[in-house]
Amino acid sequence: MKKIYDLIIIGGGPAGITAGIYGARQKLNTLLITKIFGGQVARKALNIENYPGFEEISGLELIQRFEKHLRKFTPLDSKHLTGQVDPVRDFKNRKKAQRGQIFNGVDIERDEVIKLKKIGEKFSVLTKSKNQFQAKAIIVASGADPRPLEVPGEKKFISHGVSYCAICDGPLFSDKTVAVIGGGNSAFETAVFLSNFVKKIYILEAGLKIRADAENQERIKKTGKVEVITNVVLKKIKGKEFVDAIVYQDYNPPATPDNPKIKKLAVDGIFVEIGSQPSTSFAKGLVDFNEKDEIKVDFESFQTKTPGLFAAGDVNVGKYKQIITAAGEGAKAALAAYDYLQKQR
Amino acid sequence: MKKIYDLIIIGGGPAGITAGIYGARQKLNTLLITKIFGGQVARKALNIENYPGFEEISGLELIQRFEKHLRKFTPLDSKHLTGQVDPVRDFKNRKKAQRGQIFNGVDIERDEVIKLKKIGEKFSVLTKSKNQFQAKAIIVASGADPRPLEVPGEKKFISHGVSYCAICDGPLFSDKTVAVIGGGNSAFETAVFLSNFVKKIYILEAGLKIRADAENQERIKKTGKVEVITNVVLKKIKGKEFVDAIVYQDYNPPATPDNPKIKKLAVDGIFVEIGSQPSTSFAKGLVDFNEKDEIKVDFESFQTKTPGLFAAGDVNVGKYKQIITAAGEGAKAALAAYDYLQKQR
Repeated sequence: MKKIYDLIIIGGGPAGITAGIYGARQKLNTLLITKIFGGQVARKALNIENYPGFEEISGLELIQRFEKHLRKFTPLDSKHLTGQVDPVRDFKNRKKAQRGQIFNGVDIERDEVIKLKKIGEKFSVLTKSKNQFQAKAIIVASGADPRPLEVPGEKKFISHGVSYCAICDGPLFSDKTVAVIGGGNSAFETAVFLSNFVKKIYILEAGLKIRADAENQERIKKTGKVEVITNVVLKKIKGKEFVDAIVYQDYNPPATPDNPKIKKLAVDGIFVEIGSQPSTSFAKGLVDFNEKDEIKVDFESFQTKTPGLFAAGDVNVGKYKQIITAAGEGAKAALAAYDYLQKQR
Repeated sequence: MKKIYDLIIIGGGPAGITAGIYGARQKLNTLLITKIFGGQVARKALNIENYPGFEEISGLELIQRFEKHLRKFTPLDSKHLTGQVDPVRDFKNRKKAQRGQIFNGVDIERDEVIKLKKIGEKFSVLTKSKNQFQAKAIIVASGADPRPLEVPGEKKFISHGVSYCAICDGPLFSDKTVAVIGGGNSAFETAVFLSNFVKKIYILEAGLKIRADAENQERIKKTGKVEVITNVVLKKIKGKEFVDAIVYQDYNPPATPDNPKIKKLAVDGIFVEIGSQPSTSFAKGLVDFNEKDEIKVDFESFQTKTPGLFAAGDVNVGKYKQIITAAGEGAKAALAAYDYLQKQR
């Protein structure tokens, strides 16, 4: 008979990790399931300057600190522990355990959730590796993935000029010309980051107005390398082995909505920054979604329409998606899950 | 004619500081008014172990890191700047300013707000030092103060045995016997901290049940110094120059609700941990309160019933009051204030 957890957390970004820390501190038997730690934070192009307490820190370092914090609560006998164990921490934990000071802790499972069900009062979680886990409460904190353009050539040229991660691929485009697709903060921050490597950047935005904040717009100007083109729609990515051009419709006058001008731009690479889409399909049937597939929640407890099922961080319908807000939501969801479990007893 | 700020933040705890960081990054002309930095965090008895990114950090150190982070955005020409300036940071800021890279920044005013008014579309803030400031939006993040017992002897013995701050006064009670009043997490954490100094601790709780979490209850047991007494009501604090005893009503059987037993306990000190009360009276008329004088808000934007007026952190009706949740709320309130100001234009 398999262990029934008090709480399963799905996702290892700021919301999931914080929920794990709070779950452990509340002495809930907790399992955290994630493919990788970090979510979108580890992929951030620029240093993070808005997580209070760290004036400037790389996404990778911040998430490593988060993971280390969580692993303080990792039990010694975890069969699911697949990550690295800090030997000093391990020794300290052993001593603490001998003194009876250790918490129930958090098991960690490196896997991907493909289906979530509720049977009676219990939740059942099925993973890609065909493992099944049970829990009395669930926090979905599975974050969001980059939204694809869905234009011809996009799939073909992935890793051959099309990228969703400037921090991973930016340095490969040294002295090249690239396009960034999108007009929000992440597009502008990506362009600022890329300006360290590339010769020339075009930002292409479908809307008439740029949504990036004032600070990012000024940063862009200072690079001297960026041309912002609004009111255009990307139609095609072209190339042979690698990307060599993009084709777009220009709606700026004298073109009209019915009669856009077709234009072509020579570029060596394309960075897609048109937002993200949450990974929520495994929760279908148990939660309500908005039009972006984000999970509807109560904003005080972060509970979904299903009692005992919570959603924190980028995965929910919340308007403000920051590292610090995701972490705050993870804490609230874990405390609300604790309250829920207390009432079930 | 005095400057009209985009945003005034009232309070310098985790919510206020985070709102300041976000206000500055959105290039809002921001003023932060606070008596001291840190709010309740700086007074925390035990090290903080649940702010993600720091496995263990003292309240004082965490808040110093927060303040330093905020001061990155403090403008060079601030007339209101009364705190210390880091000379290295100052030099860097000067260089950045020369390159045109500095933000609008956050002015800091060390003062206490006594009245908040809205006249037309503008808010007016009056301080204890009789300064008046104007802004288009306000974030109230003034936190909460310890709730007093309101029993005879309490006021008389403040600083003579009655304390609201174990971290400040605990070491004075070396090898003494003390009482902690309250049955929540802060009472239990206070007792754990005091066990480093004192000989014996009584925890007195009015309710039948302890509200402290499981982890804290176990910690208490391990100290071997704490006796928990529930279902009792403190009636009086006695002493000559210093506290020497407390008198309480015991409702445990064979006593009855109508006929409690009066008991006396010899103690050298009393630590009051029966919760906190928000400092919100200055906002009367503009916001709705719950029965604890906490400000009612919308939990997505943290806006109060008055457009442009937000409340983040311990000061609002939110159930879960943690450092990480306060910081998250401060960020959301600042982003919502930015949205509000954009719409006003």
